Amino acid sequence: MVEAVETMDGWCSLHDFRSIDWTAWKLASEMEREEAIHSLEKLMSKWEKVEEEKNGSQVLYKIVGQKADFMFMFLRPTMNELNDIETELNKSKMGEFLIPAHSYVSIIELAKYRPAKDGVDPETLPETQARLKPILPKWEHICFYPMDRRREGEENWYTLEKDVRGKLLYEHSKTGRKYAGKIKQFITGSIGLDDWEWGVTLFAHEPLEFKNIVYEMRFDEVSSRYGEFGEFFIGNYLPKEEIASYLKV
Amino acid sequence: MVEAVETMDGWCSLHDFRSIDWTAWKLASEMEREEAIHSLEKLMSKWEKVEEEKNGSQVLYKIVGQKADFMFMFLRPTMNELNDIETELNKSKMGEFLIPAHSYVSIIELAKYRPAKDGVDPETLPETQARLKPILPKWEHICFYPMDRRREGEENWYTLEKDVRGKLLYEHSKTGRKYAGKIKQFITGSIGLDDWEWGVTLFAHEPLEFKNIVYEMRFDEVSSRYGEFGEFFIGNYLPKEEIASYLKV
Amino acid sequence: MVEAVETMDGWCSLHDFRSIDWTAWKLASEMEREEAIHSLEKLMSKWEKVEEEKNGSQVLYKIVGQKADFMFMFLRPTMNELNDIETELNKSKMGEFLIPAHSYVSIIELAKYRPAKDGVDPETLPETQARLKPILPKWEHICFYPMDRRREGEENWYTLEKDVRGKLLYEHSKTGRKYAGKIKQFITGSIGLDDWEWGVTLFAHEPLEFKNIVYEMRFDEVSSRYGEFGEFFIGNYLPKEEIASYLKV
Amino acid sequence: MVEAVETMDGWCSLHDFRSIDWTAWKLASEMEREEAIHSLEKLMSKWEKVEEEKNGSQVLYKIVGQKADFMFMFLRPTMNELNDIETELNKSKMGEFLIPAHSYVSIIELAKYRPAKDGVDPETLPETQARLKPILPKWEHICFYPMDRRREGEENWYTLEKDVRGKLLYEHSKTGRKYAGKIKQFITGSIGLDDWEWGVTLFAHEPLEFKNIVYEMRFDEVSSRYGEFGEFFIGNYLPKEEIASYLKV
Amino acid sequence: MVEAVETMDGWCSLHDFRSIDWTAWKLASEMEREEAIHSLEKLMSKWEKVEEEKNGSQVLYKIVGQKADFMFMFLRPTMNELNDIETELNKSKMGEFLIPAHSYVSIIELAKYRPAKDGVDPETLPETQARLKPILPKWEHICFYPMDRRREGEENWYTLEKDVRGKLLYEHSKTGRKYAGKIKQFITGSIGLDDWEWGVTLFAHEPLEFKNIVYEMRFDEVSSRYGEFGEFFIGNYLPKEEIASYLKV
Repeated sequence: MVEAVETMDGWCSLHDFRSIDWTAWKLASEMEREEAIHSLEKLMSKWEKVEEEKNGSQVLYKIVGQKADFMFMFLRPTMNELNDIETELNKSKMGEFLIPAHSYVSIIELAKYRPAKDGVDPETLPETQARLKPILPKWEHICFYPMDRRREGEENWYTLEKDVRGKLLYEHSKTGRKYAGKIKQFITGSIGLDDWEWGVTLFAHEPLEFKNIVYEMRFDEVSSRYGEFGEFFIGNYLPKEEIASYLKV
Repeated sequence: MVEAVETMDGWCSLHDFRSIDWTAWKLASEMEREEAIHSLEKLMSKWEKVEEEKNGSQVLYKIVGQKADFMFMFLRPTMNELNDIETELNKSKMGEFLIPAHSYVSIIELAKYRPAKDGVDPETLPETQARLKPILPKWEHICFYPMDRRREGEENWYTLEKDVRGKLLYEHSKTGRKYAGKIKQFITGSIGLDDWEWGVTLFAHEPLEFKNIVYEMRFDEVSSRYGEFGEFFIGNYLPKEEIASYLKV
Repeated sequence: MVEAVETMDGWCSLHDFRSIDWTAWKLASEMEREEAIHSLEKLMSKWEKVEEEKNGSQVLYKIVGQKADFMFMFLRPTMNELNDIETELNKSKMGEFLIPAHSYVSIIELAKYRPAKDGVDPETLPETQARLKPILPKWEHICFYPMDRRREGEENWYTLEKDVRGKLLYEHSKTGRKYAGKIKQFITGSIGLDDWEWGVTLFAHEPLEFKNIVYEMRFDEVSSRYGEFGEFFIGNYLPKEEIASYLKV
Repeated sequence: MVEAVETMDGWCSLHDFRSIDWTAWKLASEMEREEAIHSLEKLMSKWEKVEEEKNGSQVLYKIVGQKADFMFMFLRPTMNELNDIETELNKSKMGEFLIPAHSYVSIIELAKYRPAKDGVDPETLPETQARLKPILPKWEHICFYPMDRRREGEENWYTLEKDVRGKLLYEHSKTGRKYAGKIKQFITGSIGLDDWEWGVTLFAHEPLEFKNIVYEMRFDEVSSRYGEFGEFFIGNYLPKEEIASYLKV
Repeated sequence: MVEAVETMDGWCSLHDFRSIDWTAWKLASEMEREEAIHSLEKLMSKWEKVEEEKNGSQVLYKIVGQKADFMFMFLRPTMNELNDIETELNKSKMGEFLIPAHSYVSIIELAKYRPAKDGVDPETLPETQARLKPILPKWEHICFYPMDRRREGEENWYTLEKDVRGKLLYEHSKTGRKYAGKIKQFITGSIGLDDWEWGVTLFAHEPLEFKNIVYEMRFDEVSSRYGEFGEFFIGNYLPKEEIASYLKV
C-alpha cells in the first residue's frame, strides 16, 4: 500500500472559533475595552510580521449566525506554535471577553499526483513549497467544513482500489477547477489529529460561490457516494483596521 | 452536469433564534426595560424602512415551546448586511437580555424550470425577481425546518438521473399547490453555508395547515425515500406594536 | 392519496418540562418562596377555571430522575394560548426558580376510521368532539415519549400501501385495548410542529403498566419494524394542594 | 404473543449521578461543610433503616472519571418513594453542592423461565421474592450501563420467534454464570420508563471482572447481533463512614 | 470461546482532560496563582515519586485546540488510586481554576499471542510485565482516541471466526511496526468501563507521524471494515518545570 506516502504535508493549521461575551463587553469600562481591542490588534500585528517573514499565515473572519463571532485560521510550521498562539489569545485582555466556541486541528495537505521528473521530488519544487506553506488570501468571504470519506458496506472509500480512488478524485478536481478565480481552496488533513478526516477551507469574493461549488461537487461520485460532511461555517473578512469599529459599543 | 446552474438565487437569509433571560429581565429596573424595548423597536423601525425601500425584508415571531422565545427571519442582498444586523442586535440594550438559541444561514432559491422564452432569461422577469427578493408575509404563524436529500445506498438523491429528480420534484410541487392561500412557502438553499442542505419556511393563518402539508408531503416519494428532516420550530406573529406588552412584567 | 385528510385534529398541546433551581430556591427568603408558590397556585386556579369551562385542560406531574422536576401538559384551542401560558409562567414569581428543561408542541389527533354513517361526519359526533378536546385524567402516573415512523430501505412506513398501514395500526390498537382501565392514552401529532412525528402521553394508576404496554406493543409489527422512539419521561401526579408542601424547605 | 406476561417485576429503581461543585465546596465555611456532610449522613442512616426493614435498598459509589462524582442506586417499592428521595436530597444542605449529572429510571426484572410447578406461581416463591426485592451488595466496585435490543433489517430482536429469543438468552445466561462469585448482576427493565430498554448493574470485587464479563458476553449472539449499548459508568464503594474523609478539604 | 481469556491486563488508566478557566485565573491574585501552581507542582512531584518506585506512571500534555487545555494520563495498579488522584486534583488550589472537559477510564491491555513456552505463562515474563505496567514516555507529542469494532450486518467483528480476527489483527500490527522509533503505542481496553471498547494512546516526536500512521492503518481491513473511531485529541508535552511559565499571566 503506497498510498500512505503519497501525500505531501505542509504547515500545521488551527481553526479557532470564539464568541464574544457581549454582555461582559458592554459592562466593561471604556478603558478596559480599549485595552482589550489594543491587545488583539497587537497580537495581530505580531502575527502579521510572522506572515511577512513567511513563517506562517493567518486570517480573521466574522462568522454569520450564532455558531461563533470570530473565526481565526492560523498556519504555522509546528503544533507548538499553534498552542502558543492559543495561549497568547487566552491570556490577552481581549481573551477575557471571548468564549471558546469550536476549533479544528489539521495539517495542510497536497496530493502527490505528479511523478518525479528527472529524478526531482515534486515536493522540493518551489511552486509545491508555496502551496504547502501558503499565505492565506484575504478575500471577502470564508467557508469552512470538515469531512470524512464514507466506510459503509458497499460504499467504502478505504476498500476501493487505489486507481479507482485516483480517478474519482481527478474527476472531482475538474469540478473544482471550473471555479478558478472565484474560489480558492485549501485542504487540510486531520486523520489522527481531530474528529473528521479532512478540513476544507474556501475563500470567495461572493458567498453564493460557496453554495454553487459545494452543490455542483455533491453530484461528483466521490461526494455523492463517499462524502460525509460536518458543520459548515461561513464568515466575512475582518481586517485589523476594522476591529475597533466592529467592537465599538 | 448542467443541474448546478439551474437554480436561481436571491437574497441572503438569516433565521435568528433568541431566548429571553426572564430572570435578568425581571431584575432589571423599569427604566432599563423601557430602554431595552425601545432599542428593539428602534431597530425594527429601521429594518421596516429597509423593507419599504425593497432592500430587504424581515419578520419576528414568538416560538412555541422552549427552543427559543424570539425567531427573527432577515432577508438582505448580502451576507455582510446580515452580519451587521446580528451585531446591531448584540450591541442593543435588548441584546443584554437575549440568549442566542439557534441560527440558520441560507440564500433564497428558486428552481429554474421554465425554458427561456424568446431568448429571455426567466431570471430577468419581474415576477421572478419578486420571488427572489421577496417581502415576507406577516401571517399569523410561521414554521421553519432544515432538510437534506438522502445519500444512502439505493436511496441516493445525488446519483439519480436529472429527469428522475425533476419528475419527483414536480410531483412534490403539485402537493404544495393544493395549499395555495393556506400556506406560503419559501425555500432557501444552504449547501456550503450551514449544516443542512435546504431550509423551508412556511407561513400560515392556521398552524394545523403546517401539520397537514408536511404530513401529506411525507408520502411524496421525494420525501418518503429521499428526505431527511432536522428540527422543527413554530411560532406566532409578534408585530412591533405588541413587543412592549409581550415583555411587560 | 386520501390518507392526509383522514386524521381528525383537536386541541393544541404543549408538554412543558422545568427543573427547579433548588439552590436559588433555598437562598430565597421565606417571603419570596411564599410569593412564588402563591403565583403558581394562582396560575393553576386560573387554568382550572379554563378546564371547568371546557376551553382547555392541563395537568402537573413530578418527573422521576434528573430530566426535569415538573412536567406540565397543556391543551388549548390555539397555539397563541399555549404561547400565552408559557409567557405567564415565565413572568410569574415561580418562573424565577424554574429552568427550562424540555418542551414538545403537538396537536391532539384521532384516526378517522369510521365511515360517515347516514351522511354524518364522524368528526361532528359528540363522542368524537370529547376525544378531540379532552379533559386530561388526573391519574397517579404519567408517561410521555415522542416517536417517528421509520423510513429506511425496506422498512419505510411512508411507502407502504394505505391498507397495509391500516391493518398494522388496527392490530396495534388491539394491543392497546387490552389495557383499558389500566392505561389512558392520548396521541398528539407533531409532524410540521416539533422534532418527532407523534407524541404519546399515557396515564396509569400503576407505573408498571407503562412498562407492560410499551413492551408488549414493541412486538407489534408497526413498532418492531416501523417504530423509532425518543426520550421517555415518567412522573407522579402533583395536585395543586400539594405544591406548597412539595416545595417546602 | 405471551412473551409480554413472562417477566416478573420487582422494586422500582433510580440510578442518580451527581457531580460535586468542588469550587463552591471549598468556598463554603467549615461549618457549612459539616452541616452538609451531616445532612447526607443523616439521609443515609434513614435509608439504611428502610433497608434493615427490607422496604428498599441503596448503595453509594464514587464514579471514576468526570462523568460524575457520586452514583446512588435506590430501590423502593414505588416511584413515589424514589421521587421523595430525590427531593430530600435536593432539599438537603449537601444538595447545594451537588450538580445533577445523570439518572436512570427502571424496575427490577426477572425472566419467568421456570414453569409453574405443582400449580405454584414461581413469582410467589421466597427465593424469587428475594431477587425481585433485593438487598444490594456493598461490594468494592460497581458498573452500570443501559442497553437496547437491536431492531434493524435482518437483525431485529422483536421479530424473532419467541423460542429463538429464549435460546439466545439462555446461552447468554451461561456466560454470566461462569462469573458466579466474581460478578453480581441486576437487570432492570426500562421500556416505557427511560431512554433505553434495560439497565445492567454489576458489582465486583475486581474491576477487571467488568471488562472480562462484558468482553466475553459481546461474542454471544444476543449481544454481537442484537445488543446496542449506552454509556458505561464504573465506581468505587463509598461507605457512609468514609463520606466525611472523602469530602475533607 | 477461548478468546475472552487471551488478553493480558495491566495497570488501570485514566485520561483526564481539563480546561483552564482563564478569566478566573487572571482575576485571581498573584499570590493565589502562585499557590495554585505550587499545588500542581507538588502533586506532580508526588506522582513522580510513585513513578520512580514503579507503582504507576503519568504524563501531562497541553491539548491543541479548544477541546481542553490539559490532558493528564495516569496509570495505577487500582481504580481506587485513580479515584484518589482525581479527588486530590479537585481539592487542590489549582483545581479551582480547572474545568472538567472529558475523561476516559480503561485498563492497559496486551494480546496474548505467544504460546506458553516450556510451560511458562508469557504473562509472567519480565518483558511482558514491563509492558503491562509501563512507564509512559515523555515524548514531545501525544494523540488519544477511543474506538470500537463494528457490529453491523455483514461487518460484524464479533461474529467473525477467531482465526480471521487474529489474521486481521496481525496484518494491522505489521503496519504499526513500520513506525517503530517514530510512534510508541499503548492500547487500553475499556469494554465494561467506558463508552468505547478501546483507547489508543500514541506518542511521537513529530505530530505528522500521528496523521501518517492513522491514515495508513485506515486501509487495513481491520480498520476500513471493522473500525469505528471517536474523538481525537492531540497535545504537546508540558514538563513540570514549564508549568509556571505556561500559566504566567
